[in-house]
Amino acid sequence: MPTLLFRSPSDPAGTWSDALRRRDPGLDVRVWPDTGAVDDIEYALIWASPDGFLHELPALRVVFSLGAGVDHLMGAEVPEGVELVRMVDPALTEGMIEYVTYQVLRRHRHMADYEHQQAAAEWRIHPQARPGERRIGLLGLGELGGACARTLSGLGFDVAGWARSEYEIPGVESVSGDDGLDWLLGRSDIVICLLPLTGQTRGILNGTRFRRMSPGATLINAARGQHLVEDDLLIALGEGRLGHAVLDAFRDEPLPLDHAFWRHPHITVTPHIASLTNPETGAEAVVRGIHADQADQPIPHRIDRGRGY
Amino acid sequence: MPTLLFRSPSDPAGTWSDALRRRDPGLDVRVWPDTGAVDDIEYALIWASPDGFLHELPALRVVFSLGAGVDHLMGAEVPEGVELVRMVDPALTEGMIEYVTYQVLRRHRHMADYEHQQAAAEWRIHPQARPGERRIGLLGLGELGGACARTLSGLGFDVAGWARSEYEIPGVESVSGDDGLDWLLGRSDIVICLLPLTGQTRGILNGTRFRRMSPGATLINAARGQHLVEDDLLIALGEGRLGHAVLDAFRDEPLPLDHAFWRHPHITVTPHIASLTNPETGAEAVVRGIHADQADQPIPHRIDRGRGY
Repeated sequence: MPTLLFRSPSDPAGTWSDALRRRDPGLDVRVWPDTGAVDDIEYALIWASPDGFLHELPALRVVFSLGAGVDHLMGAEVPEGVELVRMVDPALTEGMIEYVTYQVLRRHRHMADYEHQQAAAEWRIHPQARPGERRIGLLGLGELGGACARTLSGLGFDVAGWARSEYEIPGVESVSGDDGLDWLLGRSDIVICLLPLTGQTRGILNGTRFRRMSPGATLINAARGQHLVEDDLLIALGEGRLGHAVLDAFRDEPLPLDHAFWRHPHITVTPHIASLTNPETGAEAVVRGIHADQADQPIPHRIDRGRGY
Repeated sequence: MPTLLFRSPSDPAGTWSDALRRRDPGLDVRVWPDTGAVDDIEYALIWASPDGFLHELPALRVVFSLGAGVDHLMGAEVPEGVELVRMVDPALTEGMIEYVTYQVLRRHRHMADYEHQQAAAEWRIHPQARPGERRIGLLGLGELGGACARTLSGLGFDVAGWARSEYEIPGVESVSGDDGLDWLLGRSDIVICLLPLTGQTRGILNGTRFRRMSPGATLINAARGQHLVEDDLLIALGEGRLGHAVLDAFRDEPLPLDHAFWRHPHITVTPHIASLTNPETGAEAVVRGIHADQADQPIPHRIDRGRGY
């Protein structure tokens, strides 16, 4: 009977255990700290676990991440020779499409202005661009970025994307490299970061990049707080170089009460809800991975640990 | 040289004239009240023109509406034997898709709650349903309603629609008749009105219908103010029977300063901006219609005046 250990400071352990057992009643699901004997724990499903914890599991074969990103597990935490698998959950992709589409439409259609006008009982109509006149730039074209690019392009927006390698997405111009990044930042009215967090992408949203962006552009960061240099963003907004920022992820979460982002008139803060792993569909992906491994098949969505995603 | 008379209290005459002339330099475009001799005016492009005005144009053959609806032109205003053509403009359809998608996502993703939380620096995550668990009901499945149904269904929502006749839209259950309407209202978490305004649909959003709706449901009216019985809505919201209403069209526009809707905590007001006819693409549709008529071809999107749409 394969054994899976669940550990997360934020995901509901009971819901996950039930969902996993419903999909494979033969699976021995243990919730940390009730690990029982650790010698037979081959699988772990975790989020943001402390350094060293995984080294205490001698039989560990595969670590499943509870989120799309695995940056919380990179480095020393996962022992050599243990496979690392990221969460690819249809609900996670749906959620990101919804969040990004909502935030793009909110800017595109002047919806924040119309809400302020309602508070003042002001009937005023803003000139409206067509979506084809609105240039969207996606940083990251993987599972989530690619799905958002297709949806926004389907709504008629002028979409381009930047990634480590070039992607083939119909109607979406795909670029890579430093020149590609400069081109994408300069042409976009709305820049959306959905990159994985790696050594190359940490701090990528910084003052140098903001100076390449189109004046008054909007930045949406739905990836990781560590992509963003916070002080540089405040300066760029203060100078009017950027018009607005929508932030869903932060260096410190929950975002501290006294953080300047909460009260900034040109920053929208959401509490890391752009996309939430769904225990039902997420459990299905994990059980599928365990079954593949037990049958000596390759597990889908394994991480290349050299590359970091 | 065909002659077109433009008249609207709200659309920009200069922009429209330029766009029309660019597409057909041979078109004689006149802007009311500078009609010149009225004997040769065969075409009119109008919005909300006063009773009787069109009867002063003896050569009139075709009236083009500046909006998707033609209710503002029905009745006595358009002389017998004159064709009436509604605006089918790709920008109009795009705009309605954007508006409806935005408002649905705003409810679906608790975005108003997250905005209030930002004002209070409150980090709190709401449980999130998947789109397939959210039932959307569209009243009207024509040019605009059908397009919205396809987009919402494409985003994964559970979409059904009600119309005078049943439509074939993949993944969208289509119903008609009184029983169909009751079924649709009872099953939907969000009801969206995109009906044409006719004798049959005037006041269709009333207390009787609200009692059929699922408790706490959201109503979105992006059609006409006359579809809604305003007092019935205030009662239904006050009783908590409806949870929220998003209104883009009103009996009196601009909505009077002292109207209760402006300040209601459960009503979102937008100033009739859900979908705006675009002068560039709209002019193209009108010129195409004139050319068809001049070549003795049927003009696309003519109104059946008995039916009213």
